[in-house]
Amino acid sequence: MASNGDSNVTNRDAFRQAVVNTLERRLFYVPSFKIYGGVAGLYDYGPPGCAVKANVLAFWRQHFVLEENMLEVDCPCVTPEIVLKASGHVDKFTDLMVKDEKTGTCYRADHLLKDFCKDKLEKKDANITANKAAELNHVLAVLDDLSAEELGEKIKEYAIVSPDTKNPLSDPYPFNLMFQTSIGPSGLSPGFMRPETAQGIFVNFKDLYYYNGNKLPFAAAQIGQAFRNEISPRQGLLRVREFTLAEIEHFVDPDDKSHPKFPQVSDLEFLMFPREKQVSGQPAERTCLGEAVSKGIVNNETLGYFIGRVYLFLTYLGIDKDRLRFRQHLANEMAHYAADCWDAEIECSYGWIECVGIADRSAYDLRAHTDKSGVPLVAHEKFAEPREVEKLVIAPVKKELGLAFKGDQRMVCEALEVMSEKEAMEMKAKLESKGEVEFHVCTLAKDVTIKKTMVTISKEIKKEHQRVFTPSVIEPSFGIGRIIYCLYEHSFYTRPSKTGYEQLNVFRFPPLVAPIKCTVFPLVQNQDYEDVAKRIAHMLTAAGISYKIDMTGTSIGKRYARTDELGVPFAITVDSTSSVTIRERDSKVQIRVNVEEVANIVKEVTEGQSTWNDMLSKYNAPSEPDDE
Amino acid sequence: MASNGDSNVTNRDAFRQAVVNTLERRLFYVPSFKIYGGVAGLYDYGPPGCAVKANVLAFWRQHFVLEENMLEVDCPCVTPEIVLKASGHVDKFTDLMVKDEKTGTCYRADHLLKDFCKDKLEKKDANITANKAAELNHVLAVLDDLSAEELGEKIKEYAIVSPDTKNPLSDPYPFNLMFQTSIGPSGLSPGFMRPETAQGIFVNFKDLYYYNGNKLPFAAAQIGQAFRNEISPRQGLLRVREFTLAEIEHFVDPDDKSHPKFPQVSDLEFLMFPREKQVSGQPAERTCLGEAVSKGIVNNETLGYFIGRVYLFLTYLGIDKDRLRFRQHLANEMAHYAADCWDAEIECSYGWIECVGIADRSAYDLRAHTDKSGVPLVAHEKFAEPREVEKLVIAPVKKELGLAFKGDQRMVCEALEVMSEKEAMEMKAKLESKGEVEFHVCTLAKDVTIKKTMVTISKEIKKEHQRVFTPSVIEPSFGIGRIIYCLYEHSFYTRPSKTGYEQLNVFRFPPLVAPIKCTVFPLVQNQDYEDVAKRIAHMLTAAGISYKIDMTGTSIGKRYARTDELGVPFAITVDSTSSVTIRERDSKVQIRVNVEEVANIVKEVTEGQSTWNDMLSKYNAPSEPDDE
Repeated sequence: MASNGDSNVTNRDAFRQAVVNTLERRLFYVPSFKIYGGVAGLYDYGPPGCAVKANVLAFWRQHFVLEENMLEVDCPCVTPEIVLKASGHVDKFTDLMVKDEKTGTCYRADHLLKDFCKDKLEKKDANITANKAAELNHVLAVLDDLSAEELGEKIKEYAIVSPDTKNPLSDPYPFNLMFQTSIGPSGLSPGFMRPETAQGIFVNFKDLYYYNGNKLPFAAAQIGQAFRNEISPRQGLLRVREFTLAEIEHFVDPDDKSHPKFPQVSDLEFLMFPREKQVSGQPAERTCLGEAVSKGIVNNETLGYFIGRVYLFLTYLGIDKDRLRFRQHLANEMAHYAADCWDAEIECSYGWIECVGIADRSAYDLRAHTDKSGVPLVAHEKFAEPREVEKLVIAPVKKELGLAFKGDQRMVCEALEVMSEKEAMEMKAKLESKGEVEFHVCTLAKDVTIKKTMVTISKEIKKEHQRVFTPSVIEPSFGIGRIIYCLYEHSFYTRPSKTGYEQLNVFRFPPLVAPIKCTVFPLVQNQDYEDVAKRIAHMLTAAGISYKIDMTGTSIGKRYARTDELGVPFAITVDSTSSVTIRERDSKVQIRVNVEEVANIVKEVTEGQSTWNDMLSKYNAPSEPDDE
Repeated sequence: MASNGDSNVTNRDAFRQAVVNTLERRLFYVPSFKIYGGVAGLYDYGPPGCAVKANVLAFWRQHFVLEENMLEVDCPCVTPEIVLKASGHVDKFTDLMVKDEKTGTCYRADHLLKDFCKDKLEKKDANITANKAAELNHVLAVLDDLSAEELGEKIKEYAIVSPDTKNPLSDPYPFNLMFQTSIGPSGLSPGFMRPETAQGIFVNFKDLYYYNGNKLPFAAAQIGQAFRNEISPRQGLLRVREFTLAEIEHFVDPDDKSHPKFPQVSDLEFLMFPREKQVSGQPAERTCLGEAVSKGIVNNETLGYFIGRVYLFLTYLGIDKDRLRFRQHLANEMAHYAADCWDAEIECSYGWIECVGIADRSAYDLRAHTDKSGVPLVAHEKFAEPREVEKLVIAPVKKELGLAFKGDQRMVCEALEVMSEKEAMEMKAKLESKGEVEFHVCTLAKDVTIKKTMVTISKEIKKEHQRVFTPSVIEPSFGIGRIIYCLYEHSFYTRPSKTGYEQLNVFRFPPLVAPIKCTVFPLVQNQDYEDVAKRIAHMLTAAGISYKIDMTGTSIGKRYARTDELGVPFAITVDSTSSVTIRERDSKVQIRVNVEEVANIVKEVTEGQSTWNDMLSKYNAPSEPDDE
């Protein structure tokens, strides 16, 4: 087992190194500000990476925004403090940090503890007993739940020191992950770079609801940069300090979370990993989405609909469906207000990585901004017929209150009026039994005695014409950079060169994702062929198809190898002035078509109106690939 | 004249108010964080604004990136200090600010002076003599050139006070416009939110040049957010604290700025406003671009090519060509290193607004980063035949220097080696005439005496196989938000309703730009028509065309008016189960087409394969519009 595990780790690392080397060499991405030594957790997308990202985002807009008629918005990254105070980020968006007591270098406390436990377990330290191993595994399991104190105790108990210097470490303390700045010249208006795009949607709820004709359900969406000042970024593109998020906030009546289009996804089957299976140590299992919803494993149809749509989105992009699972949050992972939450996790060389979170956040966010701003972010349901509703009525008797409390009368009066139904009914019972009751007025910071004559509390039947409520929100949130990185790993493979002496790298991107859709080569350096190549290039530009033209005299095999490494799906070789060949990247099969039609063929296959197989049967492809 | 001017101002203000009211009411944009009172200079794009922006950016990619095979990159907004130190932003990206001495409120010093002068001139203050008016006009003309001291003197001279409180003002002092933050948890790595996207390209020059096969010219491009912490933002979308920039850096051999595609734009004619005309008080004039380049009015063909491409870009979007001019920077506006600079200015209710800057920045940026990083950002030109070049050779005689300067020998030696050609030849002449010379060694901060025996300076003929040089960069830089705002003003008009009692608002966006391409209405509420409308909606989604479906029983006229206000170019009305009408927004002309073909027709006209006129002749439209 141990050696097996070790070799898996080695294979994983070697595979990752091969992928990352190719990605950096071909400028899919590079560390930002490299000529100045770089900054941890910041990366630039070079030309092919930038094109992949643009393609993924364009498809996201098509698959989600256009398909569901979502309301897309675009809000600033700079955000005033009050907004993030309301959302809870100012107080709670923290990681626990420890400092090297001599050098001041900062580390994430949980990372150090995790590394320590994994190291001990993986190295099969001779000293480790079965009991100790069980303890370390337990620590790993509860790691995310440990408080600052508990983490600090474990670090002391295991005598964990600074990994770089072996110096002692400080106690863990919270570090806020938001980049802070100041808005305007006065220095008096603190602001932050947003840690997510969602808040921009919540604060606009009222306008968006109006724009949608005051009707529920509707969804708003936003694509944009988000920022997290990670303590010590690692894992390349997976944990970065600035990233592109694509978020959807689907607002729905909490009493009706059905979805009319759910039947379109209910037959899908894929790996699901519900809470019960995780807790009982069972593996994820292929599950029918419709059953998961009908059995209540997934909380509601709307959440289920988005899980299905996310599955389709990721697999269309080229994510391997056998390395994609939907994992339900454990009770301890989920915010107290959340009704249910599933992560789309993709397996890559770093393990299972959360790439999309799909959460039913109930009414939490809209309520938080309602409370802080004083602007009610609510929806209305007009009743066809007025309905009779039992209503609590609290009527303070101002004259009596005035006599008893004088200048404090207003405060007491207001405190009585805002009692909850429970408090009011308790007071009513006490007043009826005892004639008076002690009552805490928080605005006066003291108790006062309320007598039976000072207030009447009753329940009345009222006619209501509408229902006013805070919508629930279901939030699918996509980490675009993480999805793209996993896509790179799932798309990468090697195959031997024609001579067999070297392994060549290939990205099997679907045409939709491929950064460049085709290359154009003259077979040999020859003016006529070059003119044809330029004419084809011109037609491709007009058709809006990205291409690369290579007029160098390099061997055709080398030119194929260069573009396979960029994941270019089609190569057009000009070997006559009337017709040319198109070679498909993975099968290496070629078809011969007229010069005039080649741009349209590539466009059709790229944009999905036809498939490569359609073209194969239309153009009578040779049965064997041309093994260049 | 005065009343005329006043009424122009009133008209302009009324027009702007009408446009802005429509834009805000229909959520093209709204002040950000409105429920919290908003933040000056930050705006959200709502659904139609967001769609317009996405359309403009998609067209930008098509028109520039794809057409020229540019290398697009995507770099972070968070930028470490050293990068912006090298670019000059840390030291020089400032505006002059004054503070209300009692309240501390901050103002831009030049804005206060400008407002004061304009106010005096426009109000035709009785006290103002012709001399005084001339003086105020002069101040307005040189405003951008005034130093802090000069601005301060003028503010004192004119007794300008705080506009809100009438309190006295502080002296002007520079305020850096970058949002500052701190990268990582230590608090020791200052960073800024980038003020432009260009630096991300410059620091990647070496990799991009390699990616391009070590060949010049090539262009890199970047679309992304940029940030300027304006002192007191005003003018709505025109001066904001966060905005989307689209920038191109075209790298070219400084000895050859010709452009092979210049003939494609050389026949274009449009308003140009060269330096000479501005200085001599003449107006901008329609000029042929080819002539402007051949006469040397525009510095070089590549700069000219981009001016032409920018003209085409803006006019395709719907910018009125008569309210678009290319204004050359005056000598005092241009950075000392710039070879030439032209702004595409668009006239709107705020006056002529700079929306695109097109500058030949010579080798400045690459040299600045080469100096700061120590990484040479240069290009190589291999010679077909080696060339003979005269080279300066400075050979310090270390033994003699060691005897004379002991421990300082190395410093003196290095200082000698880095002398410029001019310094070296002067030293050579003096050593030959006088035998010794005083020489300042800056690393020692003192002068030393150099004798003839200590150094030999000569010129030798050397064979060189390549030329190494820093490329020039030509930078077209697009303020996307400004372009979009001007487009809104240029597209807006009103026309009377059918009854003639009210004026209806229309945006005449071309289909390319329109946020929603068509609407689908059943003529009356009827199950059959609604089913057809849904079928059409489904076909539109499949074709990737954004639409709005309106099943309310509102009158057809009102439904047209609602969508005209969003600039929707085509309205599909379902009035039978087999065929439907398509109505064009501006002409109100309708054609009748089969249900099955309607989605494709809208797609063709929207994506530019056909025009509406093609459709008119194909479907025999009635000659008169249906005046609903």
